[in-house]
Amino acid sequence: MRALSGIQPTGPFHWGNYFGAIQQYIQLQDECDDGSFYFIANLHALTTVREKERLLEFTLNGAIDLLALGLDPNKAVLFVQSDVPEVSELCWLLLTGTPMGLLERCVSYKDKLAKGIKADAGLFTYPVLQAADILAYDATVVPVGEDQLQHIEVCRDLAQSFNHHFGETFVLPKGKVLDQSARVPGTDGEKMSKSYNNTLAVFDDVKPQRKQIMRIQTDSRPMEDPKDPAGDVLFDLLKLVANDEELAEWSATYARGGFGYGDVKKALADASERYWGPARERRAEWAAKPDEVREILAAGAAKARERAAATLKRAHEACGVKGY
Amino acid sequence: MRALSGIQPTGPFHWGNYFGAIQQYIQLQDECDDGSFYFIANLHALTTVREKERLLEFTLNGAIDLLALGLDPNKAVLFVQSDVPEVSELCWLLLTGTPMGLLERCVSYKDKLAKGIKADAGLFTYPVLQAADILAYDATVVPVGEDQLQHIEVCRDLAQSFNHHFGETFVLPKGKVLDQSARVPGTDGEKMSKSYNNTLAVFDDVKPQRKQIMRIQTDSRPMEDPKDPAGDVLFDLLKLVANDEELAEWSATYARGGFGYGDVKKALADASERYWGPARERRAEWAAKPDEVREILAAGAAKARERAAATLKRAHEACGVKGY
Repeated sequence: MRALSGIQPTGPFHWGNYFGAIQQYIQLQDECDDGSFYFIANLHALTTVREKERLLEFTLNGAIDLLALGLDPNKAVLFVQSDVPEVSELCWLLLTGTPMGLLERCVSYKDKLAKGIKADAGLFTYPVLQAADILAYDATVVPVGEDQLQHIEVCRDLAQSFNHHFGETFVLPKGKVLDQSARVPGTDGEKMSKSYNNTLAVFDDVKPQRKQIMRIQTDSRPMEDPKDPAGDVLFDLLKLVANDEELAEWSATYARGGFGYGDVKKALADASERYWGPARERRAEWAAKPDEVREILAAGAAKARERAAATLKRAHEACGVKGY
Repeated sequence: MRALSGIQPTGPFHWGNYFGAIQQYIQLQDECDDGSFYFIANLHALTTVREKERLLEFTLNGAIDLLALGLDPNKAVLFVQSDVPEVSELCWLLLTGTPMGLLERCVSYKDKLAKGIKADAGLFTYPVLQAADILAYDATVVPVGEDQLQHIEVCRDLAQSFNHHFGETFVLPKGKVLDQSARVPGTDGEKMSKSYNNTLAVFDDVKPQRKQIMRIQTDSRPMEDPKDPAGDVLFDLLKLVANDEELAEWSATYARGGFGYGDVKKALADASERYWGPARERRAEWAAKPDEVREILAAGAAKARERAAATLKRAHEACGVKGY
């Protein structure tokens, strides 16, 4: 098994990103017997982040965050997407065999159109670059959210059709649906999402995050009432970062009643501080040596390019682009 | 002035290709004070030629044909498109800023759709790869047919919008409309075109071409009648390959009447043999040393890559894809 994960550098990670995806991505580094590839998808991000300084910052920070969260460059290959030019070459080869209808049917594109987001060709052909990313490294498993499964199907379609037409060239990947059962509510009770502006950042400083937690909206039931912890924003967040003992205690407290939300918030802020503490420390260490991070990325890119170049060579020869 | 011309390797050149475009492309090598770039557009051809062996053959033959027709590798840079990976990288950068509407309005795409040609994303994004080709070499002049002027406008739009958004990066090219006033009729009197199956190949062998010319359809007016040479298929073809003296003679003969079309055909076949003779010989010489052609292409690609890499570096830095 060889896994591939691309993470768009579009801003700081929040709890939803981490528990819904990143944590599971990183766990895969230990499960892959044939390597795992992690890239900061800056070429994809370019479809939305169109400011030089922000893209540069998000890109390096994305790598630092992953390292701090446990991605181990001795186990996994970590690199920046644009450092592998072979992927762009592969993208064009695939584009020439991509039926328009396949892209027009992509829900992510249709959704954005429906929301009135101005469509550009980068957004439209996004799944083809994604396919190039996956196929370049002969990845067999791609962990994705449910909503991204369609893109894996597009990738398989393109690979199959190329293989069928030009001979066996690409390895067909499988999508591995992430466990997104953990409910990660935002500070307003809705699903945590950057677009709702209700996120708790993974790497925020302790004080501002504590303030943010203390401001989480709660209902106005009397303190003494027993309360069901299920579906309670504070309790749901607590479940993610508190230890089992604490959770059992708070579960009992909710059932019993006679507590203030302020106490839960305080407990949540404490638990968050403890939970993220080690990662926050590692992050500070990595952030203090950006050149070492760049070296890791360069070494990762070299490994990634070796793979991608071999795949591109197969593809080029198969369709007659090289060897004239 | 720096000119750029891409020629698709989709099959042997015919007289229409030569007199309508290639001859003028090649003349530009003497007019450019800042170099000229000629490439065999095999990545573009991939949208239509989806057979390995044919694409390989057409690619090398395209280069051999250009050399035989007078392209001088000491004056101009000759290379194969896919040997410059930077162009594919540039293509993606440009795609992220290409409004869908710009591509949807492209007549060449709309025409193919209207003709019922199955649309793929390669055909659709074709003008963006073309823009990348042009911008990669800082070309200032791109000779094109009238029907391709719109693609130059797309290229200018994309370059201008990138420059505006990220700072001066790309040189804006100008289209130079080819003189297509020379009427090149096909063997059936219609415009010579591969899709009408009425072409005379530039590099056909003498005998089959003579046969082909002898079979050109003519009208059945009596031999003795005076005839207007204007619009006459045989005379129009003769104008392209005969010398002035011959032409004057045939012009007088047409006006006088009393000749057979067979005589004109014979004269046309003779003139064609003479006209293409030297190029045909040069072609045979180049074809006998394909490795030398490959060396020329490799040297051209090295020069082209140097240019393209400098442009790509500017673009990467401008939008924050490199330098994290």
